[in-house]
Amino acid sequence: MKKMEMSEKATVGENDRKRETICIFGTGDLGRSLGMRLLQSGHPVIFGSRNPQNSTLLPSGAQVLTHADALKESKIIFLAVHRENYDFLLALSNLLDGKVLVDVSNNLRMNQYPESNAQYLSQLLPKAIVVKGFNTVSAWALQSGSLDANTQVFVCGDDDKSKQQVMDVARSLGLTPLDRGSLQAAKEMENYPLQLFPMWRLPLAIAFGLTVFFFVYCVVIDVIHPYVTKNRDVSYKLAISVPNRIFPNVSLILLSLVYLPGVIAAFIQLHRGTKYKRFPNWLDRWMLCRKQLGLVALAYAFLHVLYTFIIPTRISVRWRWIHSMIVESKMNKTMELSKVLSWRVDVYFALGMLGFGLYILLGITSFPSVSNAVNWREFRFVQSKLGHMTLLLCTAHATLFGWDRFLQSKWYRWGLPQAYMLAIVIPCVVLVLKLIQITPCVDRMIIRIRQGWERIPKTKQALV
Amino acid sequence: MKKMEMSEKATVGENDRKRETICIFGTGDLGRSLGMRLLQSGHPVIFGSRNPQNSTLLPSGAQVLTHADALKESKIIFLAVHRENYDFLLALSNLLDGKVLVDVSNNLRMNQYPESNAQYLSQLLPKAIVVKGFNTVSAWALQSGSLDANTQVFVCGDDDKSKQQVMDVARSLGLTPLDRGSLQAAKEMENYPLQLFPMWRLPLAIAFGLTVFFFVYCVVIDVIHPYVTKNRDVSYKLAISVPNRIFPNVSLILLSLVYLPGVIAAFIQLHRGTKYKRFPNWLDRWMLCRKQLGLVALAYAFLHVLYTFIIPTRISVRWRWIHSMIVESKMNKTMELSKVLSWRVDVYFALGMLGFGLYILLGITSFPSVSNAVNWREFRFVQSKLGHMTLLLCTAHATLFGWDRFLQSKWYRWGLPQAYMLAIVIPCVVLVLKLIQITPCVDRMIIRIRQGWERIPKTKQALV
Amino acid sequence: MKKMEMSEKATVGENDRKRETICIFGTGDLGRSLGMRLLQSGHPVIFGSRNPQNSTLLPSGAQVLTHADALKESKIIFLAVHRENYDFLLALSNLLDGKVLVDVSNNLRMNQYPESNAQYLSQLLPKAIVVKGFNTVSAWALQSGSLDANTQVFVCGDDDKSKQQVMDVARSLGLTPLDRGSLQAAKEMENYPLQLFPMWRLPLAIAFGLTVFFFVYCVVIDVIHPYVTKNRDVSYKLAISVPNRIFPNVSLILLSLVYLPGVIAAFIQLHRGTKYKRFPNWLDRWMLCRKQLGLVALAYAFLHVLYTFIIPTRISVRWRWIHSMIVESKMNKTMELSKVLSWRVDVYFALGMLGFGLYILLGITSFPSVSNAVNWREFRFVQSKLGHMTLLLCTAHATLFGWDRFLQSKWYRWGLPQAYMLAIVIPCVVLVLKLIQITPCVDRMIIRIRQGWERIPKTKQALV
Repeated sequence: MKKMEMSEKATVGENDRKRETICIFGTGDLGRSLGMRLLQSGHPVIFGSRNPQNSTLLPSGAQVLTHADALKESKIIFLAVHRENYDFLLALSNLLDGKVLVDVSNNLRMNQYPESNAQYLSQLLPKAIVVKGFNTVSAWALQSGSLDANTQVFVCGDDDKSKQQVMDVARSLGLTPLDRGSLQAAKEMENYPLQLFPMWRLPLAIAFGLTVFFFVYCVVIDVIHPYVTKNRDVSYKLAISVPNRIFPNVSLILLSLVYLPGVIAAFIQLHRGTKYKRFPNWLDRWMLCRKQLGLVALAYAFLHVLYTFIIPTRISVRWRWIHSMIVESKMNKTMELSKVLSWRVDVYFALGMLGFGLYILLGITSFPSVSNAVNWREFRFVQSKLGHMTLLLCTAHATLFGWDRFLQSKWYRWGLPQAYMLAIVIPCVVLVLKLIQITPCVDRMIIRIRQGWERIPKTKQALV
Repeated sequence: MKKMEMSEKATVGENDRKRETICIFGTGDLGRSLGMRLLQSGHPVIFGSRNPQNSTLLPSGAQVLTHADALKESKIIFLAVHRENYDFLLALSNLLDGKVLVDVSNNLRMNQYPESNAQYLSQLLPKAIVVKGFNTVSAWALQSGSLDANTQVFVCGDDDKSKQQVMDVARSLGLTPLDRGSLQAAKEMENYPLQLFPMWRLPLAIAFGLTVFFFVYCVVIDVIHPYVTKNRDVSYKLAISVPNRIFPNVSLILLSLVYLPGVIAAFIQLHRGTKYKRFPNWLDRWMLCRKQLGLVALAYAFLHVLYTFIIPTRISVRWRWIHSMIVESKMNKTMELSKVLSWRVDVYFALGMLGFGLYILLGITSFPSVSNAVNWREFRFVQSKLGHMTLLLCTAHATLFGWDRFLQSKWYRWGLPQAYMLAIVIPCVVLVLKLIQITPCVDRMIIRIRQGWERIPKTKQALV
Repeated sequence: MKKMEMSEKATVGENDRKRETICIFGTGDLGRSLGMRLLQSGHPVIFGSRNPQNSTLLPSGAQVLTHADALKESKIIFLAVHRENYDFLLALSNLLDGKVLVDVSNNLRMNQYPESNAQYLSQLLPKAIVVKGFNTVSAWALQSGSLDANTQVFVCGDDDKSKQQVMDVARSLGLTPLDRGSLQAAKEMENYPLQLFPMWRLPLAIAFGLTVFFFVYCVVIDVIHPYVTKNRDVSYKLAISVPNRIFPNVSLILLSLVYLPGVIAAFIQLHRGTKYKRFPNWLDRWMLCRKQLGLVALAYAFLHVLYTFIIPTRISVRWRWIHSMIVESKMNKTMELSKVLSWRVDVYFALGMLGFGLYILLGITSFPSVSNAVNWREFRFVQSKLGHMTLLLCTAHATLFGWDRFLQSKWYRWGLPQAYMLAIVIPCVVLVLKLIQITPCVDRMIIRIRQGWERIPKTKQALV
């Protein structure tokens, strides 16, 4: 009940300004920023230093003592030094007995050392109670007070009481501590601030590659071809028309890539007759970035929608419409409205917009706060059922855009198919494979396998 | 401090791979998936079995022992068997003394038994420390590693230390444990994975019913009527025009249904003269699905916006515009732009778009992470003030669409009013009732009642 | 292990309905609402009262006893009385020994007292274990059961066991308790329910001021000027055209105000040669509301997009297009499509739409659940890199809208520049300043300063 006494002592005083004394070892950037912030929120701060007389640059209001003296004044020590310099603590080993040592260190590379800094520290100083924390906070943000966004502080440690004390310090700085469990979580916490969108790299690279490919392809077909064959300069198409071919096609391919690994996985399980075998590594990696693939696809679809809605406002489009109308008016005959064309174009638009509506729905359920609020059954319903429906609608949208052009040779400029013809290949493959899988007999088999049934008993497998 | 020692033992080893031995009872799907995953993250796994020699299908790397032997090797036992088979544990009662028994079971139906499986287990084996957890995780997801979305693991139990240990195991599997409190939470946790959007059913059913009704109604008025009376085939309207009548009308009605229960509730309280009486059940249920009603309404409004923006790009619309212009051009007179019409149409669009902007704002504040970040005062401000403002704008938008058509008999085809005339009935009723409630004298009374004032003292009520 | 016994007692009973007896002091609104809700979820409830015979209005099913008698029956006491009336508890001091006293009180104003009510209570009754909680829940919501949105209950206290017990009570009411740490968090918790969007006031005030300014400015230039000089009545522009000038201009200025404090801060640090000095207060406040500024800017941009997409559907626009076309058709000559104009307008649209896409991305990363899921490095990448890119695209969009009009005197009506010319001033300043800061030599200096380097050693600073 040490904590109780302490906090009683704190509250019995004049007011709640009387906060615990915090000791900081390390006068680097994070140490000083932390010290400044602690002082601002009412904590007395003592810096431990090799030679206290010479210590400059420290926040005013902080005391500076030798390491040993500093330790006597405080129960909580923030250790803001690099792992390579931990050794000086060995001499203080006895003074650290029962003290809470908060390791705020980070490394330069992910997985730089076999074990986490905090666990290494804990082995080095078995008497101290090591708590890992505050390493995910930016020194710059701490110091400038511009914690307008993420105020989360991850904390982990093996001793609950000490962890609570460190979390209380975080709260008194206006931060939101998050308990990450025992010291085994330290490794993950030390890797966390070093990463830069690791799951987004592959999806973004694929999207970039597809974008470049379709850009070149569309420029050749839609801009260079008319220039070469008819000497028509339609270079103004580069700003809107060409991008508006790239966006939907890349979006559709990315969306199909979200659902392709699922159908591949099901066929692998069907072939193996068991689910108790790991998938190949590439498939695992692919499945783990499906969410990101889908969100990039949604971004492209969103741009496609914007670029489509702006069409009638464009000067060149307006001119073309009006021009064709003037020509027609001069020819003194009235063109009939083609019913079939009306139907086709309207259905084409309707499919696209319904598809986009579902797309948005899928995007919304990807928000962490939304996907955490649904259970697995609900999540699978949305992502699998609605996802394949979205893919179906969008593929139909693209196919209807083509309609009979697939058969007309004039659309194969220089023998090349139009971009959307390329784009619907993978989606069609995914849809056909999925169709096979939902036929009753195949479906029944997949369900049995996923419920744990195995075609070949394991003992036999072991012999293979 | 058992935990401290344990983790010290773990960390003093070569590296952090040396994890706690976990015992699993039950070789069904979840048991095996859990075992595989535990093995993958470095935990030694022992399966308890009736006859260890014959146990097949288990993940390679796992040991198989008799139940009694398995218990001796591990402090944490995952119990992955159905409730009906718990009885075999009675014979092991003494060996389970002080062990952490993690009940991962689920039932087939919600509220299948009077008490939760975990509480039943706890009564059966008073010496074991029962922790409920992992039941909300999908075996398929665990096994395939495709935990790309929801990694939350709910855990509850009466003993904090044991609960922490189980949460640490969850963390070591890459999952995010969430403490749900004491074992009393087990019932809710066992029901959780069985539900499929329970709060969405009523709103979706209402939306579906309204959609079907308006579809039939609009087809009769807009497609069948011109065909019958003028022999004009406008069936192409089915793709865009008819849906774009359904979406706004259903959306408006759903939005008004969000605010109707609130005004009804206020009138009930005014009538009763107290707030300390439960509302009728239907009203309670209605009030609890207001958020879902509003989000479905928003989805319809979103589709309405998409379908409206595509209008000028449609072939048939373009043709009509150009056609009318050609006719006019041939008649050799210039039509004047009607100022009144310009004003009306522009205000009509402006109201719609501002209404949609507020709609989106309401939708955004419904995100769990946003609504958790505001306090009650702020939430009520947004949902009540802005919500009624949205309803007002959207109703005005629909009314302005009608304008003087309400009075022209030609718009009552076959004597039937236009769809939007039907759709504004409930919104107008809600707005009028709300207007009554915000008149100063009624408002003052409602506020007093909501602050706890009662017209008839309770003792008298008791006599009624 | 008191808690264990207790919960065992609870679960060994017939079913889990047998819940802990709760005592409530205070028969005001919150007290009664809480009592009703506790009764509904199976807790026996005892109200403590000065004269139990006369107590009316209490929920039926609750017992009423004297304060002293009530205390004997229950371990957990909810204290729903105002701070001014805490004194009556002094007489019960001994009976309160070891009891859990849950302070649910709120104040009328923020920071009304020097210390929080809970801390004051804790000093008053050192033997009682004070837990602060439930004060953020609305009595109305508790009582009506309409907790459809925010079910969070903040709880803080110095004793972990007691806090857990109170959190269990919250869970049994269907609420989601959130541990906020020690009793020092009570002050913040008591202020929380009183605030009404404190961070949004400044941004909304700025947006409102700019909106009014641009409204008046655009009305003068676009509506009054043509009326006065050409006697043309274009008042119908008020509904869509004028707002669609206000929205983009205000949005652009607000967006630039998001990034202005950042560049100012960097120059201040460059000038001071250190980061270890607080920024002026106005800059700190400004930096803290950048997120809100950006979201208001996004809302304006969203309306701008809606108002732009509706343009071709507007009667007056259609009329103008068709009219100009008829005139042209009568003049019997065909206008050529200007390539330069096509290019300019298309690029102008493309920049706007790409800018809006990035805008949306910035908005999405502002969701609490998203910004909590990224680390500082990722957050800075998105908000700083992508943010400045958005500003660049949107400024280019506005500039391209102007194009050569900047030089044509006819666009300076009454000598006044067009609205967009005013609007791009601050964005251009921000972009130029940012450009200076990312030149290698300045950039290197800023990075050094932000890593903790100081130009003048602190000892010298002290002398200044």
